[in-house]
Amino acid sequence: MRGFSLNQATTKRWPLDELVPGCVAAGVTGVGLWREEVADYGTDKAASLVRDAGLTVTSLCRGGFFHDDAWYDENRRAIEQAHTLGTDTLVLVSGGLPGSSRDIDGARRHVGDAIGALVPDALAAGVRLAIEPLHPMFASDRCVVSTLGQALQLAAPYPAEAVGVVIDTYHLWWDDTVWDGIAAAGAAHRIAAFQLADWITPLPEGVLLGRGLPGTGSVDMRRFAQAVRATGYDGYVEVEVFHEEVWSRPGADVLAQALAGYEAAVA
Amino acid sequence: MRGFSLNQATTKRWPLDELVPGCVAAGVTGVGLWREEVADYGTDKAASLVRDAGLTVTSLCRGGFFHDDAWYDENRRAIEQAHTLGTDTLVLVSGGLPGSSRDIDGARRHVGDAIGALVPDALAAGVRLAIEPLHPMFASDRCVVSTLGQALQLAAPYPAEAVGVVIDTYHLWWDDTVWDGIAAAGAAHRIAAFQLADWITPLPEGVLLGRGLPGTGSVDMRRFAQAVRATGYDGYVEVEVFHEEVWSRPGADVLAQALAGYEAAVA
Repeated sequence: MRGFSLNQATTKRWPLDELVPGCVAAGVTGVGLWREEVADYGTDKAASLVRDAGLTVTSLCRGGFFHDDAWYDENRRAIEQAHTLGTDTLVLVSGGLPGSSRDIDGARRHVGDAIGALVPDALAAGVRLAIEPLHPMFASDRCVVSTLGQALQLAAPYPAEAVGVVIDTYHLWWDDTVWDGIAAAGAAHRIAAFQLADWITPLPEGVLLGRGLPGTGSVDMRRFAQAVRATGYDGYVEVEVFHEEVWSRPGADVLAQALAGYEAAVA
Repeated sequence: MRGFSLNQATTKRWPLDELVPGCVAAGVTGVGLWREEVADYGTDKAASLVRDAGLTVTSLCRGGFFHDDAWYDENRRAIEQAHTLGTDTLVLVSGGLPGSSRDIDGARRHVGDAIGALVPDALAAGVRLAIEPLHPMFASDRCVVSTLGQALQLAAPYPAEAVGVVIDTYHLWWDDTVWDGIAAAGAAHRIAAFQLADWITPLPEGVLLGRGLPGTGSVDMRRFAQAVRATGYDGYVEVEVFHEEVWSRPGADVLAQALAGYEAAVA
């Protein structure tokens, strides 16, 4: 594995032009970026800032939400933005059930079709579409792709250089089939990103902002790191945590704790 | 399927001596009971109340929590209480990870061993141990058994008359392997209980009290009812919902809505 990357969402309130030198000062060589934050700063300007600092943009979060009317144009813009930032990975969160639908199988099929429609753009831009399975508690309102197995099935029809999957410990830790899934994803050259976050309780209202920094919760991070490394994965390892308490702390402190959690996991 | 049963947790604040005549008045013939509520009322008295009203006790919730020190004695008492109430089904919620453990595989193995230790008592009492997989969002703090597949694996070493599984729509709806799992559970004569609750968002803090009455959320209830019926399941269908707003309403009103939701599902 290539090293640690700070996903920008972990230090949500750290302005990009402080985050980038903060990473450099900490010896960090990778950052994962988010579309809105980058657009607010200016995509070209962000690309220069990061490139001039010698950082690799390990992923852009996120495309997807394929049940929105504008999904096609929006995702083409996301691919373009990823290309501008010089990252080879666009993370896709599929979106939940459309409207009041109860047809989760149909929603999943639509996700597969939508991804297929984007494959030519992705290949042309040199950006891989990375399907992220989210925890099943998000299935109705955020992501109908709930397991690594489902993500791999959705990716399978398309070339591995165009469509991969995200292994995020937070979303997958409870699944006893995930170890076979990681091996299969690796064998198929589908692992596009590997993200660490820990599972802590109680979950907050809405459950989105309930993640813990690696080492603070129930996830066996070392087992994940070993399983991903065993596939020959040579990409970065992002730490991506959403939590109000984490966001309220100074970025450099959070970065140091994220880095320590990463090191304990991969050691 | 035999008909509708009101799980007592759905109308948590309806006293048992009002709930029972309320069920009779509504033409309901089954009730699912909870250990603490029954103990508070008096187990023998509750058994008489329900029996005299001609109601079937479709399940007792719940045993399990196998990581508590007193799990063995506590579960033997639960089996005894189920026997006293005349129900053939004791629902088991396994409990989460013990202490600060991250060994979820080990925790699941312990659940299997603990259930095995209780099988003689269950057979002697004529009470079936019903392993309930809970939604993966409860894996760390409430139930390490997260899928129907895991529940079936845990049940497999033991006779089907001693150990079964619970199909609860709330916990399983997101899982695309659940349909094969229901068929397998039916073929193995392992379906001990079938419970309806709907998935609604946003989830509340702690996520325990976030269920909706059938028909109010994202779950395709009819598909579940058809899948369970197709196995030849001839037991009751419980409605089991935990939600503050539901609990705050008059029991008879909630019962009527639960019954309507059941009828829409099984029609």
